Amino acid sequence: MKKVMKIAMILGVSALLVTPALAEKKVRWKLAMTWPSTLTPLASPPLKIAKIVEEMSGGNFTIKVHGKEKHKAALGILDMVKNKQYQMGHSSSYYYKGKSISTAILTTTPFGMTSTEQYSWYYYGGGEALTKKVYDQFKVDCYPGGNTGVQMGGWFKKEINSLDDLKGLKMRIPGMAGEVFAKLGVSVTNIPAGELYTSLDRGTIDALEWIGPGMDIKMGFHKVAPYYYTGWHEPASEMHFFVNQKAFKKLPAEYQAILKIAMRAVAADMMYENFAASTEAWAKMKTEYPNIKVKTFPKNVLKEMKKTTDDLMNAYAKEDALFNEVYTSRKNYMKKAREWTQISEFDYIKTSQMVE
Amino acid sequence: MKKVMKIAMILGVSALLVTPALAEKKVRWKLAMTWPSTLTPLASPPLKIAKIVEEMSGGNFTIKVHGKEKHKAALGILDMVKNKQYQMGHSSSYYYKGKSISTAILTTTPFGMTSTEQYSWYYYGGGEALTKKVYDQFKVDCYPGGNTGVQMGGWFKKEINSLDDLKGLKMRIPGMAGEVFAKLGVSVTNIPAGELYTSLDRGTIDALEWIGPGMDIKMGFHKVAPYYYTGWHEPASEMHFFVNQKAFKKLPAEYQAILKIAMRAVAADMMYENFAASTEAWAKMKTEYPNIKVKTFPKNVLKEMKKTTDDLMNAYAKEDALFNEVYTSRKNYMKKAREWTQISEFDYIKTSQMVE
Repeated sequence: MKKVMKIAMILGVSALLVTPALAEKKVRWKLAMTWPSTLTPLASPPLKIAKIVEEMSGGNFTIKVHGKEKHKAALGILDMVKNKQYQMGHSSSYYYKGKSISTAILTTTPFGMTSTEQYSWYYYGGGEALTKKVYDQFKVDCYPGGNTGVQMGGWFKKEINSLDDLKGLKMRIPGMAGEVFAKLGVSVTNIPAGELYTSLDRGTIDALEWIGPGMDIKMGFHKVAPYYYTGWHEPASEMHFFVNQKAFKKLPAEYQAILKIAMRAVAADMMYENFAASTEAWAKMKTEYPNIKVKTFPKNVLKEMKKTTDDLMNAYAKEDALFNEVYTSRKNYMKKAREWTQISEFDYIKTSQMVE
Repeated sequence: MKKVMKIAMILGVSALLVTPALAEKKVRWKLAMTWPSTLTPLASPPLKIAKIVEEMSGGNFTIKVHGKEKHKAALGILDMVKNKQYQMGHSSSYYYKGKSISTAILTTTPFGMTSTEQYSWYYYGGGEALTKKVYDQFKVDCYPGGNTGVQMGGWFKKEINSLDDLKGLKMRIPGMAGEVFAKLGVSVTNIPAGELYTSLDRGTIDALEWIGPGMDIKMGFHKVAPYYYTGWHEPASEMHFFVNQKAFKKLPAEYQAILKIAMRAVAADMMYENFAASTEAWAKMKTEYPNIKVKTFPKNVLKEMKKTTDDLMNAYAKEDALFNEVYTSRKNYMKKAREWTQISEFDYIKTSQMVE
């Protein structure tokens, strides 16, 4: 019996050095994302989070990432996370406006906040609590998951000089911007990504909106449409992580913390990855295709886009109390935040231009 | 013996569920920061990192944070980390230009990159490797530790209409901006933070530079100097975490990962915390002190500041090969990045102004 005690003690003591929580923590999660696995930088945050969560947990908490090519339900992410087919997802809130219009306003809005303004609203201006309120409807938590920064207004085969030039124009542009353009007489169409280049080249469409130089360059649009319009419609498109609330609650506290911090780190990183990609791509495009003309829409066209956007937002706000609550919070925050942006970063770039 | 085996097996199996590395990981670190513990948002990244590293490690990896009030060596952080008095520090690289001029250029430079441009350079444009090269001199690793965004050009009692108005002006402005102003005839002085308000009020100095509305408002400068000049000199001041290389290597791999990801998350957060604070403070200042006049320096003054900055940089670059390497990399990256900033975020803010 002495031997028994001895062995029990030796093993028992070594087991006591470990907290019980730590000892039981093999967690295997799956994440479904809207994007194909190769579509960086959109696919980067989930791919990176899988890697760093594994590293931070010593291999005990792993997240298997499934791209669109695997689960075949690019816009079904919220449902799959809600139903716990996947514990986690990566997508963007505005794809789910069919479920609740209040989700549409959490990604970005035409003439809305820049990424810095929007993150400040989210973390320090009440945005986090409102986002929780919107997603509690689905028993899913929604976290920032990366930002594209300002998206370009799109590639056009002909110059837009007036509101008349928009009438009858065939354009691929989704989301709220599409709704705004439709009201201005544009014939808004939806075409699968793989057919966009040919459609633009052959004149099936006259214009299209994609993202920005970093992602546009792979699509080749600059070879067939010379006018590259600046952005007004998606100034700071946020991607989102979805997490099933029950699954999250079951995680040990350490893994909850690891997951939350990892999401923040990879979200911040996507902004820089996309900015860097656009920096390089724009330098390359400009050099290889010197005929690309960067254009800002004329003032009266922009004014009409703004008015139409406001009308659209106000109509949604009337229809849905939660949309109204989020919209009002964002609008009020933006008013203050933009005053500061204008005398800080905006004035600084202007100043730098003056001394060139 | 059967019993012995049985107990050994039961205990043995439960011990095997735990990796040996996880069992031994009580790590106690100390961090020294340049700031007093109450000086948020500058003190926020270290205070937040202590909290989240503890949470992520289940209380096994703790970091005790010492503010300036404790260690009394605000600008001695690099030395204390190098000498392993502290495993970690939080400060800003440009305070250490006395040790190597190449450190001065990693924080920000007059007429240099914005925070998004600079982070893109750091993570995707070669900045990380160059930072490592600079800090390998001290056997210390240097990581981004938060950014202030564009700092304001300072509070002035009188308007600056020409280069002549700068001559003989008594101003508190540190760093490279101070060197530039000195060359333009400003009498640059250094005054402890606690005496700044009284010095400005009584006319001991005519102007001073601090940070931006969020931090300036607590100092009360807006009550005694009506001209608030926009920024040119610190467009994206980065704070830095210093980590002793030997101490880092001794950490288990999981804690290395936890520490690195935590630094990224809190660095990104400081930018938003400071932006939000400036948003609120500027709204308050403007309302309560409607006589504050926001001014941009006149074009010919800015041009002279730019020329003087370039001369200064080129002189340092001639003197120090490492400075030259970092400077050249930053300059080349900024040229490309700014082209993209101009047609994306800058154009977007301009567009938004047009439709107001």
